[in-house]
Amino acid sequence: MKLSDLGEFGFIRRIAPDCIVASDRIVQGIGDDCSVTPGEDGSLRLFTTDLLVERVHFLLDGISGNQLGLKALAVNLSDIAAMGGTPLDAYISIAVPEGISLTFLDEFYRGLKSMAAQFDVNLLGGDTTISKQDLVINVAVTGTVSRDHILYRRGAQPGDAIFVTGPVGDAGAGLHATLHGHTGRHDCAAVLARRLNEPAPHLTQGRAIAATGCVHAMIDVSDGVDADLAHICDRSEVGCVIESDLLPFSAALTDYCKRVELDPVSFALRGGEDYVLLCTGEEKLLTVLSEVDVYRIGHIIADRRRVLRKADGSEIPLGSMGWDHFRVHA
Amino acid sequence: MKLSDLGEFGFIRRIAPDCIVASDRIVQGIGDDCSVTPGEDGSLRLFTTDLLVERVHFLLDGISGNQLGLKALAVNLSDIAAMGGTPLDAYISIAVPEGISLTFLDEFYRGLKSMAAQFDVNLLGGDTTISKQDLVINVAVTGTVSRDHILYRRGAQPGDAIFVTGPVGDAGAGLHATLHGHTGRHDCAAVLARRLNEPAPHLTQGRAIAATGCVHAMIDVSDGVDADLAHICDRSEVGCVIESDLLPFSAALTDYCKRVELDPVSFALRGGEDYVLLCTGEEKLLTVLSEVDVYRIGHIIADRRRVLRKADGSEIPLGSMGWDHFRVHA
Repeated sequence: MKLSDLGEFGFIRRIAPDCIVASDRIVQGIGDDCSVTPGEDGSLRLFTTDLLVERVHFLLDGISGNQLGLKALAVNLSDIAAMGGTPLDAYISIAVPEGISLTFLDEFYRGLKSMAAQFDVNLLGGDTTISKQDLVINVAVTGTVSRDHILYRRGAQPGDAIFVTGPVGDAGAGLHATLHGHTGRHDCAAVLARRLNEPAPHLTQGRAIAATGCVHAMIDVSDGVDADLAHICDRSEVGCVIESDLLPFSAALTDYCKRVELDPVSFALRGGEDYVLLCTGEEKLLTVLSEVDVYRIGHIIADRRRVLRKADGSEIPLGSMGWDHFRVHA
Repeated sequence: MKLSDLGEFGFIRRIAPDCIVASDRIVQGIGDDCSVTPGEDGSLRLFTTDLLVERVHFLLDGISGNQLGLKALAVNLSDIAAMGGTPLDAYISIAVPEGISLTFLDEFYRGLKSMAAQFDVNLLGGDTTISKQDLVINVAVTGTVSRDHILYRRGAQPGDAIFVTGPVGDAGAGLHATLHGHTGRHDCAAVLARRLNEPAPHLTQGRAIAATGCVHAMIDVSDGVDADLAHICDRSEVGCVIESDLLPFSAALTDYCKRVELDPVSFALRGGEDYVLLCTGEEKLLTVLSEVDVYRIGHIIADRRRVLRKADGSEIPLGSMGWDHFRVHA
């Protein structure tokens, strides 16, 4: 058997046994956006880490140094946001091949530092080494959250409304536009490429949502609405209905999809990398949140089906269509 | 200017400004074996991370999967040991190229888990992705230490004795033996290769030393006695004298050096990767520690010279001869 047969999540299940030797020191191990350990004064400690590999997660001619720095930190801050938390410190490991210029690295750290300063995060070190071939970046972020406010992937309940905190599909369409050379041709494509390369972590939104007490489960949209909602359904042992005409699309996505004759729903469900939050809870979330945008996109059901309901009322099953790092997609 | 002109430590100095935005949340940022932040009940939190890149830090035909797992965690635990601390949790990020077998990965995680279990460390997650070319592993470890016991690189005082907690030079000679194809020829070479591939973090030693209260500065020997002692001297603004005939060598190293007609002192000073601890403090450390081995190898002096004193009394200056990841060595 090869790793590509097993898939990323199959591999994680394979390595999970015997990882915990001191269970009194953990609240949540492998299986959510962050690991959770006991902190001081009744608070909880959050930890998340992401590895970005050249030619897998980014192409050097598709992203600037500044954008790569911003994004490398933002995707980790988004994991802290998904638990309702506040980030504290970040650690950057970087393996640099010969061909990378010092100018690119300076820009990379400029992006990192501006994202860190924006969210009051200290950069406390890491590791620096050479690489023979690809630029590789690992970012680790610690955070904190109160025991009363933390939200997990588990906890979604039948009858819950499903919400997202912003437009979905932009980043997926931005990748499409970049790979097809459209970013120089259409303004909308350039906007979408920036949405891919400069994600904004929804930390304020995550904390505001967690503080309402009327939300039961949360995740960030890194793999696409379909795959990330599947994580919530799996962990909560429920199903879901997404209503396609409720998915919020940006003007740029709508414009781009008209030009390239593609369905924005596909980008929203399968694209990933939007880094908005997806949560489930009471309908009244729409009214109790005053300064944070939320959009209802469907609801949780008791049986384990996961379906997309189209505007004409027809339903199609949602598949395991999100990005899985070890599987080959059609 | 290129990165190779700047060197690893020049690059770290270049990126250090503006990394701290909330100074009340840190005790020690960039510049020691671990970062240090305030913890609960007067304790301190430790954090360290190391990036291992194929063809830079290891060759797949020179190390088994089990050994790579052991070593990836051990080098981080050694950083916790160097502060006098106790490790808590580890996080593994891994980028896997197509050619790596599932058997190798299973062995890698077996090594990781056995090292983690030995030191009561939880494996709490990480990130898993593909790589186009090289196997890349990032390990991050958290730890804890009491405010009364923590040891830094700074703090060495003129008159301090300099100690190491075990034989030095074995790992460097093990690398030499591996690269020259000697491991199958001599038993001593095979022993040295195992010392390179299966380092044992000196956590018990580090805590015992810190608890004596008679040690002033500590570091682990990852870059070689010369380079790591230079870190202590730089941070403490002192100099040092190492006495070559006090350096402790294993029987395997002595045997190997006779066979290949090389000087074990070179392996000790420049080889690196021994992962013993190097500390400076009162001479009485030799007698107050009952269950931990320490060897005195020299002493700290007030002026900033760093010299090796040979058995005949002659002195030669110690250079910046340790491994610097961005510089080319003679």
